[in-house]
Amino acid sequence: MEGFVIKNLNTLDEMSLNEIESILENAQKFSEGLVFKRLADKIAVNLFFEPSTRTHYSFEIAERKLFMSPLSFFREASSLVKNETFFDTVRVFDSFCPDVLVVRSSEEAFYKSLINKLHVPIINAGDGTGSHPTQSLLDLLTIIQEFGSFERLSVAIIGDVKHSRVAHENFKILTRIGCKVYTSGPAEISEKNLNYIDFNYAIKNCDIIYLLRIQHERHHFSKFCFDNYNKIYGLNFDNINLLKPGAVVMHPGPVNRDVEIESKLVEHPRSRIFKQVKNGVFVRMAVLRYVLE
Amino acid sequence: MEGFVIKNLNTLDEMSLNEIESILENAQKFSEGLVFKRLADKIAVNLFFEPSTRTHYSFEIAERKLFMSPLSFFREASSLVKNETFFDTVRVFDSFCPDVLVVRSSEEAFYKSLINKLHVPIINAGDGTGSHPTQSLLDLLTIIQEFGSFERLSVAIIGDVKHSRVAHENFKILTRIGCKVYTSGPAEISEKNLNYIDFNYAIKNCDIIYLLRIQHERHHFSKFCFDNYNKIYGLNFDNINLLKPGAVVMHPGPVNRDVEIESKLVEHPRSRIFKQVKNGVFVRMAVLRYVLE
Amino acid sequence: MEGFVIKNLNTLDEMSLNEIESILENAQKFSEGLVFKRLADKIAVNLFFEPSTRTHYSFEIAERKLFMSPLSFFREASSLVKNETFFDTVRVFDSFCPDVLVVRSSEEAFYKSLINKLHVPIINAGDGTGSHPTQSLLDLLTIIQEFGSFERLSVAIIGDVKHSRVAHENFKILTRIGCKVYTSGPAEISEKNLNYIDFNYAIKNCDIIYLLRIQHERHHFSKFCFDNYNKIYGLNFDNINLLKPGAVVMHPGPVNRDVEIESKLVEHPRSRIFKQVKNGVFVRMAVLRYVLE
Repeated sequence: MEGFVIKNLNTLDEMSLNEIESILENAQKFSEGLVFKRLADKIAVNLFFEPSTRTHYSFEIAERKLFMSPLSFFREASSLVKNETFFDTVRVFDSFCPDVLVVRSSEEAFYKSLINKLHVPIINAGDGTGSHPTQSLLDLLTIIQEFGSFERLSVAIIGDVKHSRVAHENFKILTRIGCKVYTSGPAEISEKNLNYIDFNYAIKNCDIIYLLRIQHERHHFSKFCFDNYNKIYGLNFDNINLLKPGAVVMHPGPVNRDVEIESKLVEHPRSRIFKQVKNGVFVRMAVLRYVLE
Repeated sequence: MEGFVIKNLNTLDEMSLNEIESILENAQKFSEGLVFKRLADKIAVNLFFEPSTRTHYSFEIAERKLFMSPLSFFREASSLVKNETFFDTVRVFDSFCPDVLVVRSSEEAFYKSLINKLHVPIINAGDGTGSHPTQSLLDLLTIIQEFGSFERLSVAIIGDVKHSRVAHENFKILTRIGCKVYTSGPAEISEKNLNYIDFNYAIKNCDIIYLLRIQHERHHFSKFCFDNYNKIYGLNFDNINLLKPGAVVMHPGPVNRDVEIESKLVEHPRSRIFKQVKNGVFVRMAVLRYVLE
Repeated sequence: MEGFVIKNLNTLDEMSLNEIESILENAQKFSEGLVFKRLADKIAVNLFFEPSTRTHYSFEIAERKLFMSPLSFFREASSLVKNETFFDTVRVFDSFCPDVLVVRSSEEAFYKSLINKLHVPIINAGDGTGSHPTQSLLDLLTIIQEFGSFERLSVAIIGDVKHSRVAHENFKILTRIGCKVYTSGPAEISEKNLNYIDFNYAIKNCDIIYLLRIQHERHHFSKFCFDNYNKIYGLNFDNINLLKPGAVVMHPGPVNRDVEIESKLVEHPRSRIFKQVKNGVFVRMAVLRYVLE
């Protein structure tokens, strides 16, 4: 590997805005139908140590659309049941000499333990409560497609800010790229220092209403709050019409229907929720191209 | 998607005999070695929400023999553990823009909830106690290969008629296509209104003895019946020689050895059980061609 | 299938040294970058009835590097939950007419029950406490790359000899191919009749120190022994420097860090542990070529 620099994608913090914009441009080309065969037959290994539908399979689809050969590792059928460590499992796949590793782990900043240990580029597909760069990139793509620019846009990130890697990473990158970013939601799961604003103010004044998923599996949330969540901090038939003209609704998924958003509004004309899913494929194609070219 | 009609395969009831025969003709060509590359690199997503060997993997093999790129979804490693609904999971995969979705669910007629919601063709790979069209098609292919025609054939469907989607769908399609169809088996799991006949009469007089699987996992069957099942309603060394000359034995699998059929008879010259498995691949190749061309 | 002889890989005992050497030569070519397209698009079915990372995924990588189309069967999502037998599951996949089956099972010599029953070549990827031929082949490749020849080499197989298929198969093949082979380790899990020598003698005098994995999952090992294992029968910072000049350390993996070997020594200059993993891919490419050409 001597003489070669391996390009990884760990977190957007490490990347320049130029690099990010170049990925978004390529993603846009893929969304317009660009057929790209230069990565054909390259082997991508998807190592998901946590369950995932959207991210895992959207990487697999992205790899297939690039004519790559994707291998997916399933924890349950692996030597992890023989107590093999995370590090050794990754090193084993590295020793197989594939072309790229896509890794999700519940351990924050897992990629730090792998620096200079691998011979193959690695893409962070989510690290615990750390970051989730391809999610942020697909959000950026969805926003730029909608508004043409990030300048002067106001974004309200609403809900379980405290437990959300998406919230933190999006807050940082959207601020860096030129948006005005606010947060809102129930006090218990908010972070007041992240431009906290009143929910009703947010709904009426922001260009982008970014709803966060209540993560049952990551924390215990009081039953009372949960039952009334949609009324107080969610989108419903009462407040959907208060949105600013041109405003759009986003959500990283999976949606808790009738919690963050009333079920019948998930595919409302204001919603970009499935558009985000669609863009996830294009952004991941661009990210694969970024680390492999 | 405007202007395009998406072709799905939900149930044979919705299809004309012409369409069915055209699928069988293409399946026959595949069984004779036709190499067909027009679907190469198209992405098939196999969404199995229930465990399956035969159907799931036979679709995967069919896709590979067509040089397609098959992605298989594993429930255990997905966001279903985060309570994502069936509908949202299917919509997410639809948003990925693959070329076709192959779906099995335990929910009867699940495809009805998806009408006009998807942008990609869908193939029903079994819907609860509803239908299982590719199973029926592979049975038809096996019969036509054996007898050259459906006219004047008599078919006895034997066993757990009550809980079997295969029994009901085969009863309908075989009748429609020109066979005389009977059922037989223990009273508790029979349907007397479906041309019920005596088991011993069936064995001696029908061209096709179609044994059904006792589905332990779908119902509780009294232990007594089960222990004696093979003697009374199964094929064994005593009654195999009573079969009409030229008659064949079929079973959708997986076989409960020594229940529906004595273990050593599974590969008897009269048995077409593994022939059916083989034909499953060809029929699924033809079905993929049908929805994708 | 008449007139054709199907080539299987069951155990090295059945193979001539010429055949083994020819596989090693091809593996060496693959390690040097040989691009081989004659097996492109052939369908390999990987049937792992036991959890595995190294063997399973290294076969999948080998198949992809040969441009083959690999299908992997996951026990948890299969009809095994409907009590389908091992034999019927294998026969179903055989009826699908793929090009090769790669099978691991916990049943010793499972391949014997399949003789003359299959229409497709089969590769043994480990049979219970029986053999694991591709592991032995990758060990042979690693040794020949290191020493250029097997003549006059001394090998010490150390540890859980009793429960290890690797130990037994390697003892036999290394002896047959010209090495002097010894074993060592705790009395309770040793086999005194396999050239048993003292551990400290082995460490100082053998060219190859082959550490075996303590298989927690296969037997109950007394806690006392386990706690002190590394000090008495493992490699550590005290004894690593006693190794003979030029000697190398091997381990089939997964390593129990700080048991068979001190964690910080796993990637020591004397260790070939990840080299073995890497060679596993090349050897499996050569084995696929061997059975398919």
